[in-house]
Amino acid sequence: MSHKKKICYLDAVHVTLTDAFWKEKLRLIREEMIPYQWEVLNDRMPGAAPSYCIRNFRMAAKVQKKQAEGGSIPVDAEWSERGFEKWPADPEHLKEAFYGFVFQDSDLYKWLEAVGWQLMLSPDKALEKQADEAIDLICSAQEPDGYLDTYYILGNKNKAFTNLKDHHELYCFGHLTEAAVVYAKATGKTRLLDAAKRYADWIRQRLGKEEGKKRGYPGHEIAEMALAALYEATGDEDFYELGKYFIDERGKRPYYYDTEQGMAPAGKNELRYEYNQAHRPVAEMEEAVGHAVRAVYLYAGVADYAGLSGDEAYLAASRRLWENITREKMYITGGIGATRFGEAFSFPYYLPNELAYSETCASIGMAMFDKRMLQIDVDSRYADDLEKQIYNTILAGMALDGKSFFYVNPLEVTPILCGTDERSHVKPVRQKWFGCACCPPNIARFLSSIETCIASRDTDTLYLHQYIGSEIRSGSLTLTVQANMPYDGNVTLRVTSSEKEKRTIAVRIPGWCGQDYQADIPAGTRKEKRGGYLYLTRSWENDTVSFCFPMKPMVYLADFRVRQDAGKAAVMLGPVCYCLEEADMGKDLHLLHMLPEEPLTPKKENVSTEEVITLTAEGLREIPSETPGQPLYCKFQSPKTEPVVLKWIPYYTWANRGPGEMQVWTRYHF
Amino acid sequence: MSHKKKICYLDAVHVTLTDAFWKEKLRLIREEMIPYQWEVLNDRMPGAAPSYCIRNFRMAAKVQKKQAEGGSIPVDAEWSERGFEKWPADPEHLKEAFYGFVFQDSDLYKWLEAVGWQLMLSPDKALEKQADEAIDLICSAQEPDGYLDTYYILGNKNKAFTNLKDHHELYCFGHLTEAAVVYAKATGKTRLLDAAKRYADWIRQRLGKEEGKKRGYPGHEIAEMALAALYEATGDEDFYELGKYFIDERGKRPYYYDTEQGMAPAGKNELRYEYNQAHRPVAEMEEAVGHAVRAVYLYAGVADYAGLSGDEAYLAASRRLWENITREKMYITGGIGATRFGEAFSFPYYLPNELAYSETCASIGMAMFDKRMLQIDVDSRYADDLEKQIYNTILAGMALDGKSFFYVNPLEVTPILCGTDERSHVKPVRQKWFGCACCPPNIARFLSSIETCIASRDTDTLYLHQYIGSEIRSGSLTLTVQANMPYDGNVTLRVTSSEKEKRTIAVRIPGWCGQDYQADIPAGTRKEKRGGYLYLTRSWENDTVSFCFPMKPMVYLADFRVRQDAGKAAVMLGPVCYCLEEADMGKDLHLLHMLPEEPLTPKKENVSTEEVITLTAEGLREIPSETPGQPLYCKFQSPKTEPVVLKWIPYYTWANRGPGEMQVWTRYHF
Repeated sequence: MSHKKKICYLDAVHVTLTDAFWKEKLRLIREEMIPYQWEVLNDRMPGAAPSYCIRNFRMAAKVQKKQAEGGSIPVDAEWSERGFEKWPADPEHLKEAFYGFVFQDSDLYKWLEAVGWQLMLSPDKALEKQADEAIDLICSAQEPDGYLDTYYILGNKNKAFTNLKDHHELYCFGHLTEAAVVYAKATGKTRLLDAAKRYADWIRQRLGKEEGKKRGYPGHEIAEMALAALYEATGDEDFYELGKYFIDERGKRPYYYDTEQGMAPAGKNELRYEYNQAHRPVAEMEEAVGHAVRAVYLYAGVADYAGLSGDEAYLAASRRLWENITREKMYITGGIGATRFGEAFSFPYYLPNELAYSETCASIGMAMFDKRMLQIDVDSRYADDLEKQIYNTILAGMALDGKSFFYVNPLEVTPILCGTDERSHVKPVRQKWFGCACCPPNIARFLSSIETCIASRDTDTLYLHQYIGSEIRSGSLTLTVQANMPYDGNVTLRVTSSEKEKRTIAVRIPGWCGQDYQADIPAGTRKEKRGGYLYLTRSWENDTVSFCFPMKPMVYLADFRVRQDAGKAAVMLGPVCYCLEEADMGKDLHLLHMLPEEPLTPKKENVSTEEVITLTAEGLREIPSETPGQPLYCKFQSPKTEPVVLKWIPYYTWANRGPGEMQVWTRYHF
Repeated sequence: MSHKKKICYLDAVHVTLTDAFWKEKLRLIREEMIPYQWEVLNDRMPGAAPSYCIRNFRMAAKVQKKQAEGGSIPVDAEWSERGFEKWPADPEHLKEAFYGFVFQDSDLYKWLEAVGWQLMLSPDKALEKQADEAIDLICSAQEPDGYLDTYYILGNKNKAFTNLKDHHELYCFGHLTEAAVVYAKATGKTRLLDAAKRYADWIRQRLGKEEGKKRGYPGHEIAEMALAALYEATGDEDFYELGKYFIDERGKRPYYYDTEQGMAPAGKNELRYEYNQAHRPVAEMEEAVGHAVRAVYLYAGVADYAGLSGDEAYLAASRRLWENITREKMYITGGIGATRFGEAFSFPYYLPNELAYSETCASIGMAMFDKRMLQIDVDSRYADDLEKQIYNTILAGMALDGKSFFYVNPLEVTPILCGTDERSHVKPVRQKWFGCACCPPNIARFLSSIETCIASRDTDTLYLHQYIGSEIRSGSLTLTVQANMPYDGNVTLRVTSSEKEKRTIAVRIPGWCGQDYQADIPAGTRKEKRGGYLYLTRSWENDTVSFCFPMKPMVYLADFRVRQDAGKAAVMLGPVCYCLEEADMGKDLHLLHMLPEEPLTPKKENVSTEEVITLTAEGLREIPSETPGQPLYCKFQSPKTEPVVLKWIPYYTWANRGPGEMQVWTRYHF
């Protein structure tokens, strides 16, 4: 049996990042986020809520030591089978127990994955030592039989795998495995990989279709992607089978979760478990529903197995769900998961700007889904969306100084309303850390792997997806990419080849420039446009190709079904979404009007510490009538307006100049 | 000591309703709502959740009988000191216990009050017998010492008055008392009034500033108003003192509720209990906050005591709070309490249309506040607001057939979004009944007393506040009002006098017509305008005065600070607010544009069974672009529009033609 994706990404071994913009972001992650998060994981960060993550592993390691010495399995009397979190009243007097969310282990795994990616970019003995010690700790917390989840090890190991729906064991396993694969690739050290494999084996023995096993599957998906990666890293078909089983079994009747949760079986038409995307079999899924991070993690996993297996039903489901999200359920910032209720996808075209959830992790998951779709179909729309995710919601998730983070990414903010009532989830400024701290380490691990978003190859072709400065090696070819994103769309590719052979390089024509680009391509190159890519075939020697993808400021309208954007327009420059902010425009952004025919003028300048291109245009401001004592409602008078210069900044730089109003969608005159 | 409001309303004894519009509404209440609610209170209405209200009284009466025979006080083991409601799993097998919300008793009291008002309008032996039997039941449930609340009588009487903050005992007392006063006036029967007086005495012995008493006050206000009414009905100063004590004591430090609830005392700057308007003393209240019904019930009570006592601080507080609500916290429909979180007032100018709470009961409370402000200051703004409440949110609370009700009154509805997430409180169609059924019987009791909104008098003047057809008798004067609201503003007053004496009649100039009215006044009448009223003084004999207050359709804008209404306008005809509905305009109301300069054409026609004036005007509809496969966001193109005739209907008639979209605020072109 041979499962292989036809199209594979080029990783840090084959891609050397040279891009000024991204090297600076990765430096921030390396120098600010990773050390900061280490301190948080160790409960040493003043002002941040204790994580207890590493402490839980330490306690679990103690348990293993005691068990090895003949002690019995601990049962924490206060540990709750249904409890979702446990936070101690007095951090000074912790018991030998688990503290934090049930998925607390995953924070350390994400941190390790980020470290792995960073070590691929540049070696760092001290950081590697720190990571090795963390891995030693994790391994010493693992049960002799391979099980590894401190929530149950410190609570009641006998209850392990009795609540797959809610208790995130397979989610933690997934993050462990993803970290292990990356760390092994980065360092050649397999200690964590061996731990992951042992845990995977433990799981295989307990879950599956075979007699005597539970037919369970993850309540929070990610293990599917992780097992595909583990299979690709080890070649072990068993891991492939386990991952595919998770996808095949999902949503089948009778619902596994009904049994597990002691529920009366669901009726024929009753779709329970939409929240977990377990309402129907994957091949029958038509609409993206439920918890948005879970959903896109699943869809990315489905795309993995669709690519590996060639299964037509999974290929179709992947494409259908991707279309559904991007056509009906995505903000212009790339944000997904409109509602805080279940951190979930809402109704088609329901995309409220102020109430948006748009979790940072959901955009990270969407980027993962995009990447995998590109491995199935080389279609520039996937790469366009990946670019949109990267330069908007994902980057917006971290402050320009790398020291604070957004979990929720609204498209409009009135600070006074934040933090209460309908907006209890919305923060007008980034936070140092979160009790549920999924997003900050997810940003760290995802952006640290940015070089894997740039290029991929199959037997015939080298694909260039993202215009990020880099040196790319694929077989005899070396492709040096000079680019200047997100400032302009001028790209120079230098191609050298150690052997004279005919090869195809496919470069993406960004969706944001339409067909309106210029290319300088060596004579004698065969050119073909397909799926939004330009396929260039020749015997490359020492050639230069250059492109100008004009990045013109553009005004956009939302589909007419998006009620919240009716009468409003948004501005983008290439893939970068823009917004107005109080720091530039004063209060009452809702009084501003765009004149969509007015030219938008780009200017390079700073927003806080970040060099960006701002956009300005003539606009109007309604002059508020402020007669003292005027009633709340007055007879209509055509509002007086005054000319105003509207100034937009990139969305990802918002809220770096103190709290203030912000809006992406602005009323327009036509 | 003499406390008397200078200005008193004229009640059903002095006002005979002749108005066609209102007689039909009162007929609906009499023939539909009152019998329907009686069946619900008796748990006999198929399809409606059982109320258990009358059953609770029956059980309590049984307890009294047993106690009289020497039995002991019952303690229900399952009864919860903190539990807010108790609903049985199996209505077939109820125990001898309390069921429903802690305030379930109040539903019967409201029903009795509605019956009282109806009996004043027209006698009805059968209905009076039904009410008398209910009163017998209530009285037989009363404790020998006067205490009367079935929640504690059936739970644990020893715990009575230990949770005034949450458990609504004083709220139920207030409704009991209001019903008792009205029923006594209507029938001359004082059985219920005696019960209320005995309970009031019980309370006086336990709450107050004197040594040995608890310094408690109502968690849900209404007892203040009720005690003022009891004092006015009986002349007993003790009741006046108890009500005034409730207002004086409110919000004082240390907080009574801190003691009661076992809380550590609030710090100096910490304003707890905003929800209950107990965060600071009444005289220091600047802004309407917390649960909107509680708030306006309190403010109405404050206005009562301000009027009775002449206390300057309470007069000022009443005026200040009324201004705050109407200038910063009221929908154009008169709705108040913008947020479902705590059914509360939100931030100034935060008035979301789709997420509105705007509880029917809150508008009823606001109308009560308006009425009391008119007893302090004869200022037409109070009467204007009263009129707005009556013809908009209060009437919208009941279906045109009187058989279903709104608790929540949104200003914009997209049916598919209702009932979930942020809109879990919003219903697109009226409901038969509610678990928490405060609104339907509150509509019944308030509208049944409509004649008390029409006119008032002081020693010199007869004031005419509402143009509702009626015959008004005040001393030697008889004023016959012919009016045609809400269809037009033509009013004829016929004045006859049994004695020739100089008297002043003050008639309100409605705010909605500005100063643009015509009057035909007998020669020799002294005219003076003051506070929005026209004071007419003469020796009336057999005179006719007629007015034409022109009711022109008007377009309104909201204050610029109301972000949700930016770029939108609303239409009113006199006091009646209008809306667009899917039944007339099709789906996607957000694509419609008003052209505010276009004339609005009134037409008398039917909406469902109701004869109304509809308004039409030329407008525009954006032509949606529906290219198959189009992306969610497209480059700006000036939207194409087509002419369309916009048709508005009165807001109070919405949702009488099946579920559909509705909006009060419509985008406009200027």
